[in-house]
Amino acid sequence: MVVARTPSPPYYAVIFTSKRTDGDNGYTAFAEEVLKLAEQQSGFLGAESVRDQDQVGITVSYWDSPEAIRKFKNEARHMEAQRLGKELWYSTFGLRVCKVERDTFL
Amino acid sequence: MVVARTPSPPYYAVIFTSKRTDGDNGYTAFAEEVLKLAEQQSGFLGAESVRDQDQVGITVSYWDSPEAIRKFKNEARHMEAQRLGKELWYSTFGLRVCKVERDTFL
Repeated sequence: MVVARTPSPPYYAVIFTSKRTDGDNGYTAFAEEVLKLAEQQSGFLGAESVRDQDQVGITVSYWDSPEAIRKFKNEARHMEAQRLGKELWYSTFGLRVCKVERDTFL
Repeated sequence: MVVARTPSPPYYAVIFTSKRTDGDNGYTAFAEEVLKLAEQQSGFLGAESVRDQDQVGITVSYWDSPEAIRKFKNEARHMEAQRLGKELWYSTFGLRVCKVERDTFL
């Protein structure tokens, strides 16, 4: 699904913009696992993800509350992923936590 | 630049997730023009954009206020782009206006 089917605002978004380092370094399998974990979290509303040929990616995940985001941030396997992300997988990233105030869809 | 150099929160983000239709249909030139226009708007803070081989894209633009977003929304050439986007360029899209509450960078 290209566009996540989110409920009416307000809800929350985490925008993660990154550039990957060269080589897989265990990223693909771990990323799949972490996405599955996110989908199982209470308060998870959906996600959208794109990565281009230059290894630049934007992933946006949607949540029903800041508490749900905080809880997932502190989940053990996700914390391990955050550590590996900084050390191994990303040459640069920005992460932003936002409150979605309005939306519109085609 | 992969990650936009935004100031300390709070600021605002517009998340635009889309899938392009086949063919250029004047999109590339118009998209360039609209990005240049955005960069000239007062309150524009930066943008991040990725499109993959399946023509799925996420573009996030950052702004200092909801007023700056509203003003750009009503800019004449941007309104023309919005019309062409719905009619011609996108098979689906979602647009979300958000308040960025916190951020972190590598």
